[in-house]
Amino acid sequence: MDAPDVPIAQHALIARLGEIVGPDHVCAGDRISDDLVHDESLTAVHHRPIAVVSPADTAQVSAVLALASDRRVPVTARGSGTGLSGAANPVPGGIVVSFERMDTILEIDLDNNVAVVQPGVRLDQLDAVLASYDLVYPVFPGEYSASLGGNVATNAGGMRAVKYGVTRHQVLGLEVVLPDGEVIRTGGKFVKSTTGYDLTQLVIGSEGTLALVTEVIVRLYPRAPHQATVLAPFPTLDDVTAAVPKVVASGIDPLVLEYIDILTMTATTRQFGLELGVSDEIKETAYAYLVIMLEDNHLDDLGRDVEVLGALLTDLGAMDVYVLPAAAAGQLIDAREKAFWLAKANNADDVLDMVVPRAAIPKLMQSVGELATRYQAWIAGCGHAGDGNVHLGVFLADDEAREALLHELFQAAMALGGAISGEHGIGTAKRHHFLALEDPNKLALMRRIKAAFDPHGIMNPGTLLDVEVTP
Amino acid sequence: MDAPDVPIAQHALIARLGEIVGPDHVCAGDRISDDLVHDESLTAVHHRPIAVVSPADTAQVSAVLALASDRRVPVTARGSGTGLSGAANPVPGGIVVSFERMDTILEIDLDNNVAVVQPGVRLDQLDAVLASYDLVYPVFPGEYSASLGGNVATNAGGMRAVKYGVTRHQVLGLEVVLPDGEVIRTGGKFVKSTTGYDLTQLVIGSEGTLALVTEVIVRLYPRAPHQATVLAPFPTLDDVTAAVPKVVASGIDPLVLEYIDILTMTATTRQFGLELGVSDEIKETAYAYLVIMLEDNHLDDLGRDVEVLGALLTDLGAMDVYVLPAAAAGQLIDAREKAFWLAKANNADDVLDMVVPRAAIPKLMQSVGELATRYQAWIAGCGHAGDGNVHLGVFLADDEAREALLHELFQAAMALGGAISGEHGIGTAKRHHFLALEDPNKLALMRRIKAAFDPHGIMNPGTLLDVEVTP
Repeated sequence: MDAPDVPIAQHALIARLGEIVGPDHVCAGDRISDDLVHDESLTAVHHRPIAVVSPADTAQVSAVLALASDRRVPVTARGSGTGLSGAANPVPGGIVVSFERMDTILEIDLDNNVAVVQPGVRLDQLDAVLASYDLVYPVFPGEYSASLGGNVATNAGGMRAVKYGVTRHQVLGLEVVLPDGEVIRTGGKFVKSTTGYDLTQLVIGSEGTLALVTEVIVRLYPRAPHQATVLAPFPTLDDVTAAVPKVVASGIDPLVLEYIDILTMTATTRQFGLELGVSDEIKETAYAYLVIMLEDNHLDDLGRDVEVLGALLTDLGAMDVYVLPAAAAGQLIDAREKAFWLAKANNADDVLDMVVPRAAIPKLMQSVGELATRYQAWIAGCGHAGDGNVHLGVFLADDEAREALLHELFQAAMALGGAISGEHGIGTAKRHHFLALEDPNKLALMRRIKAAFDPHGIMNPGTLLDVEVTP
Repeated sequence: MDAPDVPIAQHALIARLGEIVGPDHVCAGDRISDDLVHDESLTAVHHRPIAVVSPADTAQVSAVLALASDRRVPVTARGSGTGLSGAANPVPGGIVVSFERMDTILEIDLDNNVAVVQPGVRLDQLDAVLASYDLVYPVFPGEYSASLGGNVATNAGGMRAVKYGVTRHQVLGLEVVLPDGEVIRTGGKFVKSTTGYDLTQLVIGSEGTLALVTEVIVRLYPRAPHQATVLAPFPTLDDVTAAVPKVVASGIDPLVLEYIDILTMTATTRQFGLELGVSDEIKETAYAYLVIMLEDNHLDDLGRDVEVLGALLTDLGAMDVYVLPAAAAGQLIDAREKAFWLAKANNADDVLDMVVPRAAIPKLMQSVGELATRYQAWIAGCGHAGDGNVHLGVFLADDEAREALLHELFQAAMALGGAISGEHGIGTAKRHHFLALEDPNKLALMRRIKAAFDPHGIMNPGTLLDVEVTP
C-alpha cells in the first residue's frame, strides 16, 4: 500500500482506496504490473495509472466510483485485458478497476435458462460449468479467456453470431454502478419488456464510458450434441460472397459461416501445421474458402443437411466440398479464432474489423485491394461472411501512411452502409477515425447521452468519445 | 385547412403545418376524426389535439418537428392506433404526426435478408409481400393491422417471441428524426456493430418520447413450410409452468409456447365456436392448457418432434395431448391472439401484461389469485408461458379499487424480478404506476436520457415519464 514514488496529492486517494477494498487490493506506482496497463490492441497508446484497485463486491465498486466522482479521477474498467481497441488502457492520472476478484458464477438457473455471473467470470470458466448441464452460452469470440464484463463492454461477437447474434442479443439484464456510486438493476430474467428505456442495451458496447457492470444475466441454450464442418474453396471472392445469402436462405441455419482468403489460409495451415486434405491444384488456384459449421440435435438430420449444403455449394461454384474430420475441423476453427495472434506473430501493424451488409463484402474487398495497391500495403483477410464482419490484418509500417489508409478503409465501409467496428470496438485506438467519420449529429447526441450517465466525464475518458473530465 | 373553431394563436401553427405537408394533409378542430384521438387502451384518458398532420416523407417529418420544437408544441406519433397503453393518445395543445402516408415497403433485400420499410407499413402488408419470397418477419403481435413504426415504439412482442425474440431483436437499423429536426441513421443492414452507443435499441420501446422513426430495417428469415400445434390440458397451473422449462430444455425450440387458463379457454371456445376435440371430463377438470406450436423445414422431422413432445408432455402430467388439425389450430391461435378483444367484449375493466421470469409464473398467479379474492375482482389470464409474459383481463369496475389492485399486481411482478409490461408498454395508462414503483435512480437516469434527446420535452409528454414541455 505504501507508495513513496507517487505525489502527495495522489497518496491520500490511494490510502482511501485501500480503506475501501483493503490495502492488499490496491496496487500503485512501480508495483503495478506492466501486464495491467494495456490490452491486446496493436496500436493504442498506454499510460500508467495512479492505482489498480480490485474490489470484492458491488458495494466496493460503488464506494470506489463515488470517491472517483468526488475527486474527478478517471476510471477505466479491466476484465481479462484481451480487448483489441485499447478501451481497457488506463488514462493518465486515472485509476483502473480490475474485476479479477469478482469472478463468481452466481447462479445457473435451469428453470429460466439463464446464468447470473460477475463481470470477472471468464468465458472458458462459464463454458466448463455449462457443459456439465448440456447447456451453452452461445457467444464465442476468439479469445475464451475474455471476461463476461469485457464482453458486455465491447458487445463481443465471434463466429457463431450468424446463428446466435452477439453479446447484445444474449444479455438479458445487468447490475451496473453509475459514476456517482448509485447501483441500479436493468432488465431481468426475461426476454421481453417494454417498461422504460432499455438501459441494458445502452450499457452493452459502451466500452466502459457510461457505468461499471457488476452483474450480468445471460441466456443459455441446449448444447446441440452433433456438429459438422464443411470447407469449400472458391475461385473468386465474388463467388464466395454470392454463395453466402443462398446458404442463409436455404434454411440450413449455419452455426458458423466464415470466409478465409488465400493469404490467411496459407499462413494458417503453415503456422498450425493443418492438413485439411485440399489438393495442391486447388490450393494454388482458390482465392478464398468458405468454412461452414452446422449443429443439430439429431445425427441423421445433420447428415442430410451436410449433403444438401454440399450440393448447394457445388451449384454455387465451389471447386470442391470437404466435410472435415472432427479433429481437423476443430483445428481449423481454433486456428481461425487465432487469426489475430497469427497476424500479430507475422508483425501485422494493425487489425481491423469493419462491418458491412454481407452482400457488400465484394465491393468492400475491391476497395481494400485498390487501397492496398495504392498505399503499397499488404492486407490479409478473413471474416464472418454471414455477418459482413471483415477482419483485416494490415501490414504497413509507416504510421502516417497507415493512418491515412485506415481512414480510407473505414470510409469505404461506411459508404457501403457499414460501420468501423463489428466487434472489437472503437476504444482509444480507433477513436480519432470514429470522430472524424461519424455523423456529427450522432456524435453530439452520444456526448449528451454520456453526460446523462457521467456528468463529470470520469468514465474512461479518451475511449470512444472526446469527452474530458470536468473540474 | 381553414379551421375557424381554433384559437388565433393555433391558427398560424396549423397554417405553417399546411405549408409543410400540404393543406390536404393537416386536419384540425372538429374535423379530426374521433378514431384518431385514441388507441385501444381501455383506461387511458384522451384529448383532442390541435391538429393531425400526415407527412409524406422524412423531410416533412423533420420540418414538422423543427417547427414543433421552435414553438414548444407537444408531438405524439401515430401508426395504426392499435396500442394498448395510450402512448398514441394526443396531448392537450399538441399535434399528432400520423404515418398513414409513409406506408411504403422500400426494399426487400434478398442478399442481406432484410426489409427496409416506412413506419406506416402494416404487419399484414409486409407479411403478404414476404410470403411471395418464402420469407417471414417473425414478430407477430396479436394485431396484424399494427404498423412497423408502432411496433418499434412499443417493442412489440407476441406469441413467437419464445423462438424469435421481440421487435428489439429483429430491428437492425433506423432512420429517426430528432426533436429539433435533425435526421440520423442508426445501425444498418448488419447484426453486429460496436461503433458507439446503440441508438437503435434506445429508440425501440421508447414510446415516441425520444424521436420519430421514419425508416426501419428488419431482419427476415426463411419461412418454414411445416407447422404443427399441440394442445395439452393440465390439472394445475404449477404443472403447466413446471412443464415449460422442460420443453425449452428439450431442444425442440417451439415457435409458440402459450398457456390459457380455464376461464379464458371457456370464453374463447364459446365466443369463437371452437371445437378442439377435448373431452367434457377434461374440460371440467383441467385448470389450464399449454398450446405449443412447432415449425420445421422437413415434415418428417416435425412429425418426430411432435411425437417426442407428446411423450414429454405426458411424462410432465398432461391430462391428454391433442395434435390439432390445421384448421382448428389456426382458429385457436387466432382466437388466442384476439384475447384482448375477448376481454373487451366481456367488459374487462383493464388488461395487463406483466412479465416475470417464466419459472415465477406460479408464484405470480398465486398472488394474482389472492389479490383477486381480496379485491373481489375477476381476473382471467392467458400468456406467453415461454417468456413469463402474463396477460390478465381485470374485471373490477370501481376505479379507485382497481388502481389499488393494479398497484399491488405490478408490485407482485416486480418483487419476483419482473416488470410492469412485457409488450404493451407504459404509455399514459400505466405511467403513474411506473413512476410510483420504479427505482427512483433509474427514473432520474431515464429523465436525463430523455433530455439528451429532447431538451424541450416536446416528444409525447405524459407518456412513460413525467417530463413536461419547457417554455
